[in-house]
Amino acid sequence: MRTTYLTLAMSAILAPYFEPSVEPRVVAATGQPEPLASWKDGPNKKAIVEFVKGVTTKGGAHFVPVEDRVATFDNDGTLWCEKPTIEITFALENFKVMLPKNPAWKDKQPFQAIIEKDKEHLAHADMAELIEFFVATHAGMSQPEFNESARKFFATARHPKFKVLFKELTYQPMVELVKYLQANSFRVYICSGGDMDTMRSVAQEIYGIPPENVIGTSFVYEPREVEGKLTLFRTAKLLSFNDKIDKPKNIWLHIGKRPILAAGNVRSGGDIEMLRFSQGSKYKSLQLMVNHDDAEREFSYEEKDRASLNASEKLGWNVVSMKNDWNRVFAFQK
Amino acid sequence: MRTTYLTLAMSAILAPYFEPSVEPRVVAATGQPEPLASWKDGPNKKAIVEFVKGVTTKGGAHFVPVEDRVATFDNDGTLWCEKPTIEITFALENFKVMLPKNPAWKDKQPFQAIIEKDKEHLAHADMAELIEFFVATHAGMSQPEFNESARKFFATARHPKFKVLFKELTYQPMVELVKYLQANSFRVYICSGGDMDTMRSVAQEIYGIPPENVIGTSFVYEPREVEGKLTLFRTAKLLSFNDKIDKPKNIWLHIGKRPILAAGNVRSGGDIEMLRFSQGSKYKSLQLMVNHDDAEREFSYEEKDRASLNASEKLGWNVVSMKNDWNRVFAFQK
Repeated sequence: MRTTYLTLAMSAILAPYFEPSVEPRVVAATGQPEPLASWKDGPNKKAIVEFVKGVTTKGGAHFVPVEDRVATFDNDGTLWCEKPTIEITFALENFKVMLPKNPAWKDKQPFQAIIEKDKEHLAHADMAELIEFFVATHAGMSQPEFNESARKFFATARHPKFKVLFKELTYQPMVELVKYLQANSFRVYICSGGDMDTMRSVAQEIYGIPPENVIGTSFVYEPREVEGKLTLFRTAKLLSFNDKIDKPKNIWLHIGKRPILAAGNVRSGGDIEMLRFSQGSKYKSLQLMVNHDDAEREFSYEEKDRASLNASEKLGWNVVSMKNDWNRVFAFQK
Repeated sequence: MRTTYLTLAMSAILAPYFEPSVEPRVVAATGQPEPLASWKDGPNKKAIVEFVKGVTTKGGAHFVPVEDRVATFDNDGTLWCEKPTIEITFALENFKVMLPKNPAWKDKQPFQAIIEKDKEHLAHADMAELIEFFVATHAGMSQPEFNESARKFFATARHPKFKVLFKELTYQPMVELVKYLQANSFRVYICSGGDMDTMRSVAQEIYGIPPENVIGTSFVYEPREVEGKLTLFRTAKLLSFNDKIDKPKNIWLHIGKRPILAAGNVRSGGDIEMLRFSQGSKYKSLQLMVNHDDAEREFSYEEKDRASLNASEKLGWNVVSMKNDWNRVFAFQK
């Protein structure tokens, strides 16, 4: 079995439901006094600030023209919490709604395992099964219908441990980083294995990133006539699973430029190619690899083969420690 | 044989080389006194101005929030001259360079017909042949190499009739329209059957449209290591031929929104689906269909099955007459 984004995501689906719940602390809205207020002083914050100063200083050795200031961020585990993976949770919600109309699922994997909460099966489910689940629960709807179902999910679904809405599980230091880059004329993109339309339904609201700057896993659309209007419907056919080498390919397809800053996280090795692609820029570039080492405020987990940390060490990328580099993880924490 | 963008493009490749040449008139650079100065007063200019006023008037019945002000333009025949199709001319240039290394082409169609200037064969070439030509002449290069070859082409190649650089063959009224929309907070995209990377190499310079706002025909990329850098190479495999129904699909893939303004042209019927998709917007929308009826200043040509004009009449789209609606076609004409 290959260890991938989806197998990891699926095996982790049920785990957090059994963890002790933590009461969310509510904080008053405050003005933001400093661009990277949730970052602790240290080598990583320093590297970010110096990089941005370098690329924006006209006449400096590292100046980058505005049109080439492109940054790409992975989403799950980099911009928001991935335990459980939010798109998979959304897929499970869709699954519940769709199940009565699909009785055959009861005898078919991985649907059966999900119905029976068979953690053992899910932990070892193969790629084909997991993609089938992901695809089946995202298909058949028109784009307006799909957008509406995503809107409803984000307006109501809550995290099992933190009890807040899923959309509140953005990492405050990373949101500040996105805004800091935008304030310095960067065009910031999401480039994630998550479903593109799902992320697009919420990215503007929670990150200030518009739909057209979201690159993700995509499906083949099919045109149908709805009340005289040409309308696109999602089919069950995958167009691109935006992970690993597909990230640079889709960055080229959507943007046509190498990013000068790329950020991913330790979990599946899915961001290594994106960071390498960024590092191949003709300009000075910066790569960030977020490490989940904060069991207290979020979760602590590692990568089996250590590929992301090994690449970071070998290629000189900045490993961001959630525990040591961040004053807080979520906006609702103090 | 299906009449398509490519068959039309190919059959038209050689024709202009035999037309009488026209000396370009050079004009002094002038400040632009009025946003749509090259448009004649009349119903089409009025429709454009009223539409833009409507969507930008806060509190008005047709106001559209800035984030939903998306416009998509076909390129060949809509924004710049398509006789001969500029990407095909570029492909022919690549073909000349690649021919010595591909001696087998001499005995294979459509390569043989191109070498022998066999207009009869080209006019009836089938789709598979033409795609093979298009693909073969765009493949095997790394992205930096390809960009460099496109840059060289646009810096030197001249139109056989007008004698100016191909990149000077933009329609001045349409360039003004792009800038007018951008000044009114529209995000303007190209959505064309032309090769995406080729258009991206020049769109910023000639239209003020950045590479990431160019949607076009795309190829599968393959990663290779070049001097330790992860580098993308173009393969001979087509990813998407961005014509007809692929235009709405790729608009959704790249933007995730329906355009509220879409512009295409009469020639192959390739823009009908894009204009229909735009017309399905929940907002008031505008569709423009450019008609090539100006043999004197550009070219005059029609569509065999009249599909674009029929759709325009049936669906209430604005047909733009190059002859009657435009004060001038190209910037170099008066």
